[in-house]
Amino acid sequence: MLTLFHHPMSTGSRYARLILNEYGVEAELIEEKPWARRKEFLALNPAGTLPVLLAENDVPIVGPTVIAEYLDETRGALKRNRRLLPESPIERAEVRRLVDWFLGKLDNEVTRHIARERVFKLQMAAEQGGSSPDSTAIRAARSNIRQHMKYVDWLAATRDWLGGAQPSYADMAAAAAISILDYLGEIEWADHPAARDWYSRVKSRPSFRPLLSDRVRGLSPVAHYGDLDF
Amino acid sequence: MLTLFHHPMSTGSRYARLILNEYGVEAELIEEKPWARRKEFLALNPAGTLPVLLAENDVPIVGPTVIAEYLDETRGALKRNRRLLPESPIERAEVRRLVDWFLGKLDNEVTRHIARERVFKLQMAAEQGGSSPDSTAIRAARSNIRQHMKYVDWLAATRDWLGGAQPSYADMAAAAAISILDYLGEIEWADHPAARDWYSRVKSRPSFRPLLSDRVRGLSPVAHYGDLDF
Repeated sequence: MLTLFHHPMSTGSRYARLILNEYGVEAELIEEKPWARRKEFLALNPAGTLPVLLAENDVPIVGPTVIAEYLDETRGALKRNRRLLPESPIERAEVRRLVDWFLGKLDNEVTRHIARERVFKLQMAAEQGGSSPDSTAIRAARSNIRQHMKYVDWLAATRDWLGGAQPSYADMAAAAAISILDYLGEIEWADHPAARDWYSRVKSRPSFRPLLSDRVRGLSPVAHYGDLDF
Repeated sequence: MLTLFHHPMSTGSRYARLILNEYGVEAELIEEKPWARRKEFLALNPAGTLPVLLAENDVPIVGPTVIAEYLDETRGALKRNRRLLPESPIERAEVRRLVDWFLGKLDNEVTRHIARERVFKLQMAAEQGGSSPDSTAIRAARSNIRQHMKYVDWLAATRDWLGGAQPSYADMAAAAAISILDYLGEIEWADHPAARDWYSRVKSRPSFRPLLSDRVRGLSPVAHYGDLDF
């Protein structure tokens, strides 16, 4: 069985889990606190970032997009119409652009700041950077959510799925990020009906179920987090 | 002919140019100043980042790793032993990990800060963020260079090429970043003999020649920048 080092409030980790689940790949999950800079973990990934997949023979596959490409090559390519990357290079490029958007731009502008201030700092020891949340950082990150949700809304309104006609890695990346923000009650769903409809469809996929039972110690999700109809 | 929107002091742009040159793909280069947030450019890439490749039928391919995958699928796959991604998924994952390292981690910790403070700020109007360089930011970035160069030194000393037995995207990503730092005289080559030997080999490739004649207005490269024997 494969092993995934992950954290439930890391977008890249959720992205990798969704893909593993979509492709029916069993993996043991090990929750890693990257800020602890555990020596054994740094030996797997000197960058110290999540997620890391131990593939066949325990070879570490490092980082969300690298894991996604690996799983596409070793699993997805055999899945025919359930493959999460389209066939044509141009369509693949559009899916990958959106993955970079949600794992990169959205993460840098919103998700990781919210997660750090509202979740990680509670779990960190003082010498690891633990402290009370920085409300200025939270406010700055929050001010970017609406623009990003408008973009998701626009994509959802103009395409069947965010990356094109079929479910793709773009949906998994967006849902990975948005599900973290939703857990924390940061999304104003009423303002984004097309995004809401899309998210409800993603949430209903069996691959999503394990994420809906994620719980962070000391921090309950908003009431509708697990509801398929919200 | 394809078109590449790029900037000579952007790691991702140099990476894309090296790959185009390696694969013998002709492309018209258009220098873009992303801080100007030109409307026509934002229409191609709403994230406003470089590089962007206009592929066949002027479809925009956005971002360095997305461009690299696209060129692998449409060009590299036909190149046999001159392909810049290995055949096996595990080896491909290692190359992609290193690409992320040099385009992501090195860029975030060093290259883009040095480029912004020492180059971009000189080219920006005041209302675009132009100002004199921030010496604290430069010092912070510089303090990370040695660790990164030690890692390149270690990779170069233990492998034929940074990503494995053959030249790969990992070499192109590392050389893209390091050539910017080298232009600006930021690399202490004497301390990193294996890295120096590796860089000299990359520099000698025909694909590299156009980058060695890059000039930034008002800022000459260090004397050895274009020398193959430095």
